[in-house]
Amino acid sequence: MLARAAVEKALRVVNDEESRVRAWCFLDSEEALFEADRVDSNESGKLHGIVLGVKDIFDTSEQPTEYGSPIYSGFRPRADAGVVALLKHAGAVCLGKTVTTEFACSYPGPTTNPHRATHTPGGSSMGSAAAVATSMVDVALGTQTAASITRPASFCGIYGFKPTFGTVPIAGMKPVAPSLDTVGWFARTPELLDRVLTCVTGRPRFARSYDPPRFAILQFMDPELRSLESDQALLAFEMKALAAGAKVDKVGVLDSYLQLHIDHPIIMAYEAARSLAWEHRYRGSELSKELLALLELGTSIDPEIYDRIRNHKIAAKLEEEKLFCGADVLVAPAALGEAPEGLESTGDPRFSRLWTLAGSPTVSVPIARGRTDLPIGIQLIGRLGDDSRLLSVTQWCDSNFDGLGTSKLTY
Amino acid sequence: MLARAAVEKALRVVNDEESRVRAWCFLDSEEALFEADRVDSNESGKLHGIVLGVKDIFDTSEQPTEYGSPIYSGFRPRADAGVVALLKHAGAVCLGKTVTTEFACSYPGPTTNPHRATHTPGGSSMGSAAAVATSMVDVALGTQTAASITRPASFCGIYGFKPTFGTVPIAGMKPVAPSLDTVGWFARTPELLDRVLTCVTGRPRFARSYDPPRFAILQFMDPELRSLESDQALLAFEMKALAAGAKVDKVGVLDSYLQLHIDHPIIMAYEAARSLAWEHRYRGSELSKELLALLELGTSIDPEIYDRIRNHKIAAKLEEEKLFCGADVLVAPAALGEAPEGLESTGDPRFSRLWTLAGSPTVSVPIARGRTDLPIGIQLIGRLGDDSRLLSVTQWCDSNFDGLGTSKLTY
Repeated sequence: MLARAAVEKALRVVNDEESRVRAWCFLDSEEALFEADRVDSNESGKLHGIVLGVKDIFDTSEQPTEYGSPIYSGFRPRADAGVVALLKHAGAVCLGKTVTTEFACSYPGPTTNPHRATHTPGGSSMGSAAAVATSMVDVALGTQTAASITRPASFCGIYGFKPTFGTVPIAGMKPVAPSLDTVGWFARTPELLDRVLTCVTGRPRFARSYDPPRFAILQFMDPELRSLESDQALLAFEMKALAAGAKVDKVGVLDSYLQLHIDHPIIMAYEAARSLAWEHRYRGSELSKELLALLELGTSIDPEIYDRIRNHKIAAKLEEEKLFCGADVLVAPAALGEAPEGLESTGDPRFSRLWTLAGSPTVSVPIARGRTDLPIGIQLIGRLGDDSRLLSVTQWCDSNFDGLGTSKLTY
Repeated sequence: MLARAAVEKALRVVNDEESRVRAWCFLDSEEALFEADRVDSNESGKLHGIVLGVKDIFDTSEQPTEYGSPIYSGFRPRADAGVVALLKHAGAVCLGKTVTTEFACSYPGPTTNPHRATHTPGGSSMGSAAAVATSMVDVALGTQTAASITRPASFCGIYGFKPTFGTVPIAGMKPVAPSLDTVGWFARTPELLDRVLTCVTGRPRFARSYDPPRFAILQFMDPELRSLESDQALLAFEMKALAAGAKVDKVGVLDSYLQLHIDHPIIMAYEAARSLAWEHRYRGSELSKELLALLELGTSIDPEIYDRIRNHKIAAKLEEEKLFCGADVLVAPAALGEAPEGLESTGDPRFSRLWTLAGSPTVSVPIARGRTDLPIGIQLIGRLGDDSRLLSVTQWCDSNFDGLGTSKLTY
C-alpha cells in the first residue's frame, strides 16, 4: 500500500477511536500526510507504507517530546532517537507521539483500554499498545524497565516484543534505569515484529522454521508468582500447543533466576534516583508522589547491596541452558490476569521484572479472553541474543494455534 | 574555601590560559559567580567550593550543548545530565562546557596540550583534561567509549578515572556506543576522584588502606600493544613502587582479554551507526569524513558477528581472578608514549579499548616525563565493581611515590 493511503486509513481510525481511547499526546495529521507523500516519492524502503506510533519517551525532531511530565511541556529535541530515525529511514511514517506514564514509571496517563474504556490499558507504553490494538497504527515503539511492554500487550490483546537487552539503540530515549531500559515494539502480527527487528539490527528474518517447536512451561511455586487466571492462560497455551503438534515440557525455575525477581526493584530504584537526579533535585514539586517515593527509595539504597546484585545477572546467564532444558522457548504468564478496572494504576509488574533484569528477549502473545472477556496474554521467553528463534516460534504459534486471542478461558 | 573565592580564582586562570589552551566551548563567568553565591548561601554540600568543568557531550540546563557538532549549534536541553545534577546538588559550581571531539569520537576540537600548544591534549575529553591540567577547574567530567579519558589524562599529566561500566548514570550524555559509553572524570589528586565517586554513587570513601599494595604489571607480547616509551613508563612505575615498599609481579594477559582488544572497534562502529542514525541519515553532510566512515563501517558489520562478540565480555569476566593473580590492581600503559605533535589527531586509542569493553575501572596516573618532556601516564586497572580499592591504591601511589609525574624517563 502507498504510504499516503495507509496514513489516510490510520487517520480515519484515529478520528473514530481517539476520543474514547486517548492514545495520543501529539498527532499532526498534516505533517503525517506530508511525510507519507515524501516517502511515496522515494524508492520504497523495507517499512514502506507502515504507520508508526512513537512512545513519548523517545526524542523526535518533528514533534514535541514531553516524557509524560509537565516539566517537559513543549520541549523540542533537535534529533530523532536512533531507533526512530532507523524506522523512518526504512520508510515508516510516524503519525505522532503516544501517551506514556510519567517518565515511563508508574504514574499513569489518560489512555483507556480499547476493549473496555473503564479499564487500564497497562503501562508504561499505554498509548502505543492502545494505538496498535485499535489499528490506529501498524507498529508502535515502547520501552520496558519493569513490565512496560509485556503488560500492556497482554491487557490490550496484541503482540509486544522486548528484544534482548542492548540489541536496540537507546540513544534519544529518556533513561530511567540504564541496566534495565529496553526498547521494543507492539504489532498485531509476529511478522511485523520481525520486520522491524531486521530494519533496526540487520539480523536475518525468521532464521529457520520450527515445526513443531519445543516449549517449556515454567512452573512457579512462589504464590506471589501465580494466579488462577495466569494458570488458566498457561493451560490454554498448553492445549493449543499440543493440538498443533508441539512438544510441551514443564520445568521449574532456577533460584538464580528467581533471585532476579527480588533484585529488580532495588536496581530500578537505585538507578532511577541517579538518572532522574535533575528532575528530583531541581523540579521535585512537579513530580508525582509515586515517582518521588521511588526516587527517595533509590537514594536510600546501600550501594554495596546494589554492587552485589549486579553480579546476579551473570550467575543467571551461566545457568541459562539449564533453565531452558533444551526447549526452543520458555512460556510464562505475561501479567496478573485481565486489565484491572480503573485508570489510576497500570497494573502489577510482577511477571516481567525477572526477564527485564535477565535481559532475555520476550514476546507477549494474546492467548485468550478472561473471566470478563478482556484479553489475557502469555509470554514466550528466548535465550539471550536468540531473538530470531523467539520470533520464529511466535510466528509458528500465530499460524498454528486455533482461536488465538479469541477463545474464552475456562475456570 | 567559599565557592565565590574558588570561582574567582578559577576565572583568573581562565583569563591567563584560555587563549592558548582553548579548553572551553561555553563559559559564562557571570552565571558561574551567581551560582557560587547561591551555593555559598546554602548549607555546604560534599563538593562545596569545587569548581567543575562539564564535557560538552553532557546535557546542561543552564548552558548550550553542542556535542562537538555544528548540527547542534545553539541547542538548549531542558535538563542537566544525571551526573551533572548530582555534582551541582553536592555544591560543585559548573564553570562551563569543555571542548569535546565531534560526538566524542575522533574528529578533534581546537584544544591544545597545556604543556606544549603544538601538541594534542588527547581526546575525546580534550577540554576537560586541559582545564584540569591548567587548574582552571578542580574536576572535569569526561566520557570514554574507546580511550577518551585515559589517553588525555596521560597526555596532560593528570589523573583520569573511568569507573566500572554502569556505575555512573549515563542519562543526559549523548550516546555513541551504549555497551561501552562510560562516564568518568579528571582531577589533580586521587582524593578528589574519590570524593566525586562518593557523591555520585554513595559508595564509602577509601574503603581501607593498602599499605603496601600488591601490583601486577601486565606483559603484552603483541608488538601492537607495546612501545619503547610505554615499556619505559612501566619500568619507572615498577621502580617507584618497589622503592615505596610495594610488591610487584609481572603477569601475562589472558586470551579472553586480548580478544576484547580486537572486538572493541567492531562493537563501537556497530553501535555508533545505530545511536547516531538520525545524524547519519538526515544530517550526513554536516558530519566529518572520519565519523561518516565509522558510521558506514558500522552499518556494514554482520550482526551475527556483533552478537557473537557480546558474549566475550562474560568470558573475560569469568577469568578475572585468574588475570589478577591475587594482585590488588593491574598496571598497564595508558597511551602510546607522549602526546603526538599536531592537532589533527587526538592520538592512538590502543591501550584503552580492551578495558573499556571489559568495563573494568581504570585510573590513569601521571608517572613521568617522556623524551621531549611531555607527560606520560600508566593506568591502574581494578576488578569490576572494585572501584574503592582501585582509588585507595591510587591514593597510596600519590602519597608514596617519589617524583610522581615529574621525573624524566631514561632510554
